[in-house]
Parts: sequence; structure tokens; C-alpha cells
Amino acid sequence: MRATVMYGAGDVRVQQVPDSTIKRRTDALVRVTGACICGSDLWPYASRTPDDAPFRVGHEFVGIVEDTGADVTTVKKGDLVVAPFAISDGTCQFCREGLQTSCEHPEAAFWDMVPDEGGQAEAVRVPLADGTLVKLPVTPDSALMPGLLTLSDVFGTGHHAAVTAGVNNRTRVTVIGDGAVGLLAVLASRRLGAEQIILMGRHPARTGLGREFGATDIVSARGEEGIAQVRDLTGGHGTHVVIEAVGTMPAYQQAVGVVRPGGVVSRVGVPQYEDGPIGVASLFGGNVRLAGGPAPVRAYIEELMPDILDGTVAPGKVFDVQAGLDGVADGYRNMAERKALKVLIRP
Amino acid sequence: MRATVMYGAGDVRVQQVPDSTIKRRTDALVRVTGACICGSDLWPYASRTPDDAPFRVGHEFVGIVEDTGADVTTVKKGDLVVAPFAISDGTCQFCREGLQTSCEHPEAAFWDMVPDEGGQAEAVRVPLADGTLVKLPVTPDSALMPGLLTLSDVFGTGHHAAVTAGVNNRTRVTVIGDGAVGLLAVLASRRLGAEQIILMGRHPARTGLGREFGATDIVSARGEEGIAQVRDLTGGHGTHVVIEAVGTMPAYQQAVGVVRPGGVVSRVGVPQYEDGPIGVASLFGGNVRLAGGPAPVRAYIEELMPDILDGTVAPGKVFDVQAGLDGVADGYRNMAERKALKVLIRP
Repeated sequence: MRATVMYGAGDVRVQQVPDSTIKRRTDALVRVTGACICGSDLWPYASRTPDDAPFRVGHEFVGIVEDTGADVTTVKKGDLVVAPFAISDGTCQFCREGLQTSCEHPEAAFWDMVPDEGGQAEAVRVPLADGTLVKLPVTPDSALMPGLLTLSDVFGTGHHAAVTAGVNNRTRVTVIGDGAVGLLAVLASRRLGAEQIILMGRHPARTGLGREFGATDIVSARGEEGIAQVRDLTGGHGTHVVIEAVGTMPAYQQAVGVVRPGGVVSRVGVPQYEDGPIGVASLFGGNVRLAGGPAPVRAYIEELMPDILDGTVAPGKVFDVQAGLDGVADGYRNMAERKALKVLIRP
Repeated sequence: MRATVMYGAGDVRVQQVPDSTIKRRTDALVRVTGACICGSDLWPYASRTPDDAPFRVGHEFVGIVEDTGADVTTVKKGDLVVAPFAISDGTCQFCREGLQTSCEHPEAAFWDMVPDEGGQAEAVRVPLADGTLVKLPVTPDSALMPGLLTLSDVFGTGHHAAVTAGVNNRTRVTVIGDGAVGLLAVLASRRLGAEQIILMGRHPARTGLGREFGATDIVSARGEEGIAQVRDLTGGHGTHVVIEAVGTMPAYQQAVGVVRPGGVVSRVGVPQYEDGPIGVASLFGGNVRLAGGPAPVRAYIEELMPDILDGTVAPGKVFDVQAGLDGVADGYRNMAERKALKVLIRP
């Protein structure tokens, strides 16, 4: 079968690999019908060295169950399923609390940690299939497929950012970042009733989609100028909720600059830093909270799916490019150069 | 009149100063009957240089109103009152939200920022008296006075730590620090019903009081050993809530080490650092939240006072030394050397 392998920076190849097969009684084998390139895939794509060992990539996909291990009970051959970016057993204390990204099971993992498997491929072995996979009530050729594919990561991640920040109909929100997660954080905040949603982004096509998703204001300036503009839009104090959907230190600093005293900075962009300002001058003095982390998207699928099925929301609009596996390398390059917002791969 | 003035490190003097007087129509003049030395006073006491300008110190006090400006309506001459450590107008948007520490009024301030005033003195001018002061329904010689004095800072601060962390009767809590704030965070967590309260502290007399306040476990080890012991007490994962009541980087690191995935580190020790670990390896990976800040104790006085008046809680037990103004210098020294837990001054 063919699968995507990441080598050094800028070097992603689709190549022949051994066929994925069932290895454990709790596995499912899924033939991938739709997968994504994720903004977080771009971090290693930008930073790997030629000495880093190649790894199989892709953590967002939907597909058809081809086979199941003997212990799998919730999905069966022929089912169309979506896989969250974190593998989880669905039964441990963390899964029961809705924090599947911290599942205790030894096989629990993010996809990039699973050797020789990845979603940007013709097929993939899914460990802990009962806990991980969710059946989709449509056919593989459904027009809703792109939207349902976002349940694997980006829509759930945007929703997580809004939920952990406590967005409700009295909340003003700033979203930093006009990538797919930022835009879907706008959509999720709108869905939760946010009163005002300020999207900070520079890319007109993306901010246009942000408006469609519910952004009430667009601020294209960055740094001090961007902070000043958000403050002007909010009576001088910034917003209670700031969703940071980039992951860089400048984005974090911008978030701290526009959050209201007593508010919350909710991070869902994977931090590309370990230390950052958290003292009196940044968070502490104004009782600003810090929230977020890898989204337990599995916890949100049942809540979000009905709104996609009935057309209330259309998160699939974040895909502006579709391609087969042969288009994966171009997809990475175009996303890294910000020519593509998000690439849908149909293996 | 006599007042406490801090000079360089280790140099606190009680000296003659001009009498405090009413300056604005919203001021009250309070004759101080009880004041405290605060753990946060020990930071400048430890770190000031001889070149730093002397300043009047003390931000926790009770006293009798001697005079009021023409616009003051909520307190009058002869009233016994308590003053929170933050001056606030009680009417701005932040005060109405219960975040009086971020009051917008130009005169709003922490006491150390008010020139030529301080609570460790015979008298003090209180700006924004209507917003700041709360009348106490006892006489100045009441045996409840020490407990009521803790409403000015330490009890409200311990309560804030627990409230912002969401402590309830299903919560396990770790409290780091056996100073007055840490001990009253134990009491506050107990009062809110916490299921388990692990107090991390090394001073036997203090941890003994911690047990009296409701701690279920004491861990005297620090660093990796202390973290391992807390994990042993909690099934391996740490506690949902960690209250950090010290303010140093090692205390913060300890907090990150014992917080459960999905949990919250609530800080009320004033951070003696600006940058700290917040990335994937510390907060982000486990969806750990960071909360806390200067406590808006004014917001909590009405809630906490009845429990002091009826004897449900006795936060005044944190005072292990009482002295007149002549004992202030010794009080600082003994607190800095950890010979005294908290000093009550009766000017």
C-alpha cells in the first residue's frame, strides 16, 4: 500500500510500505477515504533535520472498516468511521472524564507516536478501535464528508478552545490565528453564542471565511498595533476570552496583550516554546487564567456531529484544496507557504 | 503619629510621621486597632537595596473610623471596619464582577502604592472608603478580632485560591506552602468540602495547624521526593487542584509536578519570577490550567464573615505572635526567620 512518510524538513514522500494489518484483538483496519494535512504537521515539516528518522504521518482521517480484531464490538466491517487524533480506550478514568488525550492505556497515543502507521495513507491500523473510532451515519460519497472529517481534529480543537475558556452568550472572544483551527474556533464560539468575536488574521480569504463563520470584527495588524486595535474594539480592556490558535511566542504575547483582567487565554496551537511570561506583569496581576491543551476531540464528536448532519454548521469549508495521495507533497508545500488553508486528501 | 517605614533589606523602622488626615471627599480616616505583617511584606524586606526610597508599609488592618469625607455614606465615625489589601471604588465594571483588584478608578491601588499611608501605623487615610471598607458587627475588644482581621487578606486570599480552582466536595487538593495563606487555603478548601487536602510543608507547628484546619495528609518532602509522595497518596496522578501559596519557581515546579491531567494550578503566592514553564511538557500536554492572582478579598468578606462570627471557622489561629508597634521590627525578623507564622500588631 502507499503511505506518506516525512523525512527531513520540506521532504514528504508518498511511497510503498508494507500493508497495514490487524495486530491485536482490539485493532481495526481502516481503508482511508479522506485524510487531512494538519497545521501541526507543518512544525516538523519546517524543523526536522536530515538525521531525524523518517516517520509515517497523518492524524486526521475517515475511512471504511475493512477488518476488526476479535474483541472489537462497536464498529464492524463496512462501517464508515472517523478517527480522532488521539487513540484512547474510552474506559479509563481520564476517558470517562472526557480527557481522552490523557488516556492511561499503554496503547493510547497520538498518531505520530504510533510506529509504522499514519492517516495520510491508503489504510491504517487503528489500535483501541472501540474507544477511538466513531461510526458516521452517511455514505462515503456524502457531501457532508469534509465537515465530518473535521471532527477528527480541527473542529473539535476549535470547540475545545471555546469550551475550556467558558464561552457563552455573554462572552467576547478574540481568536488569534486564521488557520483552520482559528477559523473553527470562531465557528465554535459563534455556536456557543459568543456576543463578539474578533478574529486576528492577515489573510483576506481566510478572514473572509472567518466572517462567514461568525467573526464580528477582523484585526489584521499584529503586535502592539494589533493589541491596540482589539482594545479599541472592546472599550479599552480586551476580551474575557482569547483563543490562541497558532502556537508561537509572539501569538502568546499577543494573547496576553488583549485579554481582559479576570479573563482566560485558551491555547490550542501546539506551543513551540516551553517557558513563557506568567508572572505579575502578564497573567498574575490581572487574575488572567491559562487554559487549553491537546483537544480531547473524541469527547466532542457526539455533540458536534448533529449540527454538521443537519447543516447548522459547515466546518468542511476550511478545505480549499483536495488531492489524491500524489498531491500530498504539493499540499504540504502549499500549506507551508500559506497558499492552501487546509488540504483534503482522498487516497 | 507613629507608622512603620521600610528602608533597605532587613531595615524596618517605626517612626514619627505627619498625622494622616482626610484629603478627599471619599476618604475615611481610620485609627488602626489591629494590623498584620504579611508574607508578601517579606519579599521587599528580603530584597530591597539601600538606594530604594523608604515606603510606608502594611496592607491588612482593622480599625475605628475617626472621620469621613463629605461623600462617604457606608461608614461613619465610630464604626469598626476592616480594609482589604486593595482599594477599590465598588462601582466600576470590574468591582461589579467581583474583581476589585482590577478596579478602574484612578485612586484604586494596593496599599504599598499609596504614598505616605500604610496599615502598620496608628492611623491611616483610606481612599474610596465606600468601596473599600466593610463594617464589622463586633466591638474592638472582641475575641473574634484576629479572625476578622484575616478578612483583610489571608483568609480571603486562601478562599480565592480555592474558588478560582473550582474546589467542591469532589475535589482533591494539594496546598503548597505552610505559611498563613497556605494554611487558610486548607481551611477554605475544607469549608468548600474538598474530599482530600494534602498540605506540603516542613514546619511541624504549622502543619499541625494545617491538620486542625482540615488537611488530611501532610507531605514534608520537597522537589521530586515530595512530588512522588503526593502521587503515592493520589493513585499516581496527583490532585485536580494544586494551590501554590509560596511564589517561588521551585514551588511552581512542584505544583506542576503534582497536578493531575485536566487539573488546575491556582497561584496566590506573589510570583517572584516572570517567565516559567507553560509548554507541552508542563501545562499544555495534560490540559492543565493556570489560575489565581491577587485575591479580590473585598468580594468575599460578606460570604466569609458569618462563618467567623458564628465560630464555624477560626482563621485567626494563624496569629502566633501579638505585639505593639514597638514589636514590628522583631515581628519582621521573626517572620523572615520563620520563627513566627504571622504577627498581629496592636498599635
